[in-house]
Amino acid sequence: MTASVQPIVWAGDHLRLLDQRVLPHEERWVDCRNAFQVAEAIHGMAVRGAPAIGIAAAYGLVLDALHHRDYDAAELVLAESRPTAVNLRWALARMRGVWRGGADAARLLAEAQLIHAEDLAQNLTMGKLGAALLPRDATVITHCNTGALATGGHGTALGVIRSAYAIGHLAQVYNTETRPWLQGARLTAWELTRENIPAKLIADGAAAHLMATQKIDWVIVGADRIAANGDTANKIGTYSLAVSARRHGVKFMVVAPSGTFDLQIRSGQSIPIEERVPRELTEFRGAPIAPLDMDAWNPVFDVTPADLIDAIVCEKGVIENPTEAKVRALLG
Amino acid sequence: MTASVQPIVWAGDHLRLLDQRVLPHEERWVDCRNAFQVAEAIHGMAVRGAPAIGIAAAYGLVLDALHHRDYDAAELVLAESRPTAVNLRWALARMRGVWRGGADAARLLAEAQLIHAEDLAQNLTMGKLGAALLPRDATVITHCNTGALATGGHGTALGVIRSAYAIGHLAQVYNTETRPWLQGARLTAWELTRENIPAKLIADGAAAHLMATQKIDWVIVGADRIAANGDTANKIGTYSLAVSARRHGVKFMVVAPSGTFDLQIRSGQSIPIEERVPRELTEFRGAPIAPLDMDAWNPVFDVTPADLIDAIVCEKGVIENPTEAKVRALLG
Repeated sequence: MTASVQPIVWAGDHLRLLDQRVLPHEERWVDCRNAFQVAEAIHGMAVRGAPAIGIAAAYGLVLDALHHRDYDAAELVLAESRPTAVNLRWALARMRGVWRGGADAARLLAEAQLIHAEDLAQNLTMGKLGAALLPRDATVITHCNTGALATGGHGTALGVIRSAYAIGHLAQVYNTETRPWLQGARLTAWELTRENIPAKLIADGAAAHLMATQKIDWVIVGADRIAANGDTANKIGTYSLAVSARRHGVKFMVVAPSGTFDLQIRSGQSIPIEERVPRELTEFRGAPIAPLDMDAWNPVFDVTPADLIDAIVCEKGVIENPTEAKVRALLG
Repeated sequence: MTASVQPIVWAGDHLRLLDQRVLPHEERWVDCRNAFQVAEAIHGMAVRGAPAIGIAAAYGLVLDALHHRDYDAAELVLAESRPTAVNLRWALARMRGVWRGGADAARLLAEAQLIHAEDLAQNLTMGKLGAALLPRDATVITHCNTGALATGGHGTALGVIRSAYAIGHLAQVYNTETRPWLQGARLTAWELTRENIPAKLIADGAAAHLMATQKIDWVIVGADRIAANGDTANKIGTYSLAVSARRHGVKFMVVAPSGTFDLQIRSGQSIPIEERVPRELTEFRGAPIAPLDMDAWNPVFDVTPADLIDAIVCEKGVIENPTEAKVRALLG
């Protein structure tokens, strides 16, 4: 297995982030020297993917602590950088626990590095658990980018695909391009081609037709937040895939570490859904696509209800046909 | 009501086609002086939309007849320019009927102009019939471009939207961007903004989330070919919209003139689905999006089964909950 890319690098006194806006054709790094710059990189999507933004935010706190800046202010600017992914808040809460205990920058750095390393370990565990659910010669659909670029390494949904390929259980991946940011066409395609995993790109709207005309075993996606009942917020388009999967008897798997669960939220209806500017749809790389006066509605996540999910894979185990009781039983 | 744009113009001795690949930011015309150039314009998508390509093909035959070129060869090159839309074959068959009767170029031109004018008249009739199905203050979703640009004028699905707006029955349109060609973002958006019809662009993958979170009355789409049982081939992504619509109790309307029906074909499974080159997904305006070695699967149509369609509106009437018996009864 090729070592997967490492997009978040602690460089001794600053944080280096691989700029995911210009991949796959350019490898540009963003150097962050304070929490505000990290928050900007998160909001501007230089770094994206729920686990990755949690990790980046943890390092952001370290940067301000190194320079003895105000901890609360650093935490606030990071917390507000993206609303939907709970991993961000989870990482900030975990860092605050350490900070409350009277930690210095070195201790905070150790915690951020531990969050980072644990995420990779969790992904490898989930990869194993998820791959075991696939039949031999599986054909799967995945959405957005949930790979090494979106996490501390290996990936969540794409980690399962990587692990399945490594043990010879994977015949074919179809990955959606994932409008409007094209994370699938740019980032997932980049990770898949680097490792020679057999993959074909499809338009988001082609997935239902694919399920109707070819044998697809599983749809495998990540998550930005999972409510206590298993309802899952993930990249816009996920819910549509789940609805089509159910119609075609295609199984639907969510892969996310336990930090993605938000047990304070009973159901997906209470998960805040980020809406971004119309320009992300009406323009491409700064050039207009639509007429200049065209309005757009640009929600970037949606909610897949638990009843459309066959399995949630987290590092603590697999929850089949998720319910609140099963979620609480596994996560304690 | 603003007069809708006229993208197919007979210019006395040649055919002018508004190049839909560069709209909405540039109005460039393609001049065609023979059937081969028309076939190229159809295959290259300078002109697109099932009714529009039928009309353009009819004029293509006139061009070769004017110069006494081989009729059969002209027909063949036009017939092979796009495989899915049946209107193309329908228009060619109708022109051949006239040709067989011993017609000269002038008589062929009169027939092409009649096909053109009839299409506009049919669209106005369908607009009236379809608009009558909508509740007051309707909110609808439409896909691809089915407007004046895709037809002889007014449009099919977008014609219903135009007609509904004209009588004050339309509150809001959401139009999908329609990957990979972005006909929704470019062309439908252009037609809607020109006429100030309240509209918002959405990513294709956002439609299911829209249905889950807001009240949507109808999904309204066109068709490239309708089988005898009502199964409908239309732009890729249509089937996904139909599956989501059914889950959310949103009604689903297909709007297409009688020339779109192919009674030789019993069900949608036998409709040939055009697959185009991967480059349409992996590049944008000639610049790469995906890694250069990324493969893609690019079917540009899909089939919506009749059981997901609440109404097919054609100029001869409305078929609710279509079945083969109802289709044959209406079309004779």
